[in-house]
Amino acid sequence: MGIHIGIDLGGTNVRVAIINAQGEIEEILHETTEAEKGYEHTKEKMIQMIENIRGNKSIDGIGIGAPGPLDPKEGIILSPPNLPGWDNIHITDDLEAHFETRVQLNNDANAAALAEAKFGSGKGYESVFYITVSTGIGGGLVIDGTVFDGAQGYTGEIGNMILDPHGYQQSNLNRGSLESHSSGTAIGKIAEERYHITGGAEEVFRLATQGDEQAVMVVNEAIDYLAMGLANITHIVNPAIFVLGGGVMKSEDLILTPLKEKLKSYVYPGLVPAINITVASLGGEGGVIGAALLAEQ
Amino acid sequence: MGIHIGIDLGGTNVRVAIINAQGEIEEILHETTEAEKGYEHTKEKMIQMIENIRGNKSIDGIGIGAPGPLDPKEGIILSPPNLPGWDNIHITDDLEAHFETRVQLNNDANAAALAEAKFGSGKGYESVFYITVSTGIGGGLVIDGTVFDGAQGYTGEIGNMILDPHGYQQSNLNRGSLESHSSGTAIGKIAEERYHITGGAEEVFRLATQGDEQAVMVVNEAIDYLAMGLANITHIVNPAIFVLGGGVMKSEDLILTPLKEKLKSYVYPGLVPAINITVASLGGEGGVIGAALLAEQ
Repeated sequence: MGIHIGIDLGGTNVRVAIINAQGEIEEILHETTEAEKGYEHTKEKMIQMIENIRGNKSIDGIGIGAPGPLDPKEGIILSPPNLPGWDNIHITDDLEAHFETRVQLNNDANAAALAEAKFGSGKGYESVFYITVSTGIGGGLVIDGTVFDGAQGYTGEIGNMILDPHGYQQSNLNRGSLESHSSGTAIGKIAEERYHITGGAEEVFRLATQGDEQAVMVVNEAIDYLAMGLANITHIVNPAIFVLGGGVMKSEDLILTPLKEKLKSYVYPGLVPAINITVASLGGEGGVIGAALLAEQ
Repeated sequence: MGIHIGIDLGGTNVRVAIINAQGEIEEILHETTEAEKGYEHTKEKMIQMIENIRGNKSIDGIGIGAPGPLDPKEGIILSPPNLPGWDNIHITDDLEAHFETRVQLNNDANAAALAEAKFGSGKGYESVFYITVSTGIGGGLVIDGTVFDGAQGYTGEIGNMILDPHGYQQSNLNRGSLESHSSGTAIGKIAEERYHITGGAEEVFRLATQGDEQAVMVVNEAIDYLAMGLANITHIVNPAIFVLGGGVMKSEDLILTPLKEKLKSYVYPGLVPAINITVASLGGEGGVIGAALLAEQ
């Protein structure tokens, strides 16, 4: 029995860990990604990190969680905004050639979804829809312990879900999309535009916690759109549980209770008693744990 | 080897058929449902129809497609609007007791989805999202040849998907829901309200085909919302193919081409070349064929 390696490849940091069969981190190494120096530079860095952490142990599988868009079936990173200049990177081929073991690639949200489904808040549920609400909004669907990628790997790209054709539009997303209304970026922008509250989502949440009426209105509107998004996911795939992660979910009291109430008003009456939303339990470690689990898929 | 029986239980008619291994109807019987006479009456009628069609053949499995809401896991019909007075009907228990064979229940859209995925337009695709656009809008998701019901059986209840919080509202659905904008009922109501066009969706389509500007506007708006709905499904589960059925899809030329164009504008650029929408090929027979296939699940 060899070890399982998880790689959490982000725009800023890359982390390489050995994950045991209980989904725990046995050892972990951190480095800066330095994506701007090009893929070859970061690839050599990752190879060195893996060599360092493995020592003389044999490797049974390597999994990589990376920013999308990417092709999970072919193992190719496709020009992600968070890794500028990385175009059509055949990362799994490269690592497979070096380590002579199976390498699996998937996006970071799918990796976190898998970790939460197997060892986190979604453990024991047949279908888990993980949603990360941070500067952006993404997600992943795990069915029977396996990531459901969809035909082109776009399952869980819920930030682009249309909720209001006359709503806000952030960057190149659809007008009135979930991410354009409920992400940290959206909350910060809307608060500034409407009420001249500066300092981004963090400041809006701080003010809302203190009872500031304008901040509360902005937060409640974001929660309302998030509830619509969850209702739509429910009426499309009806997952057994929603697991919410990401920076915004740190404001759990402010968000989770009103979110559940709002969601009740948007689903069929028969679904109200079945509403099941919880907060991710693995936090920032979900990504690297889930990456290692990808290798078992 | 015994026979497989499919039952298509509708609000108006009930059909019982023997379906062979190629998904073809070998024999079929039709009767009026007479739901208003109560479940026991219709149950006896269905039992008699099955006895008549089986002759002296042994039965390997029975599947029932029925109007929702229902509980597919427990095999219970739950007060559907289309079967008034039928509350908590344990239909699979009753038929299993009589025929001493396995009986599976699912909603009519899921049954049709399964038939299209196995023997219709979705054949050969890993994931098929079937959508029926008729007086209402429903659907079903088939993954690897199996209906994906979701935790409470609400997968595919896409008519209630929110697309516009300031939009129209039909009956007890969400305001701005897909069904409130793109169903036959919605098209008829919107045309009447705005332009005093009477005669329902059929008349609106007739006028639109003749180039009537007002009718064309109503149809195009309905297609726009349908495209948003398909975009949302794509960004949530990314099915390999959409199969569209139901009365409204008879106006194929009027709908399918503009629908594809609209959908292109609502999905991530990487998905545009992969857009795959087709019309159901089994027509009205999909329901009873799919019902029989449920028994194999």
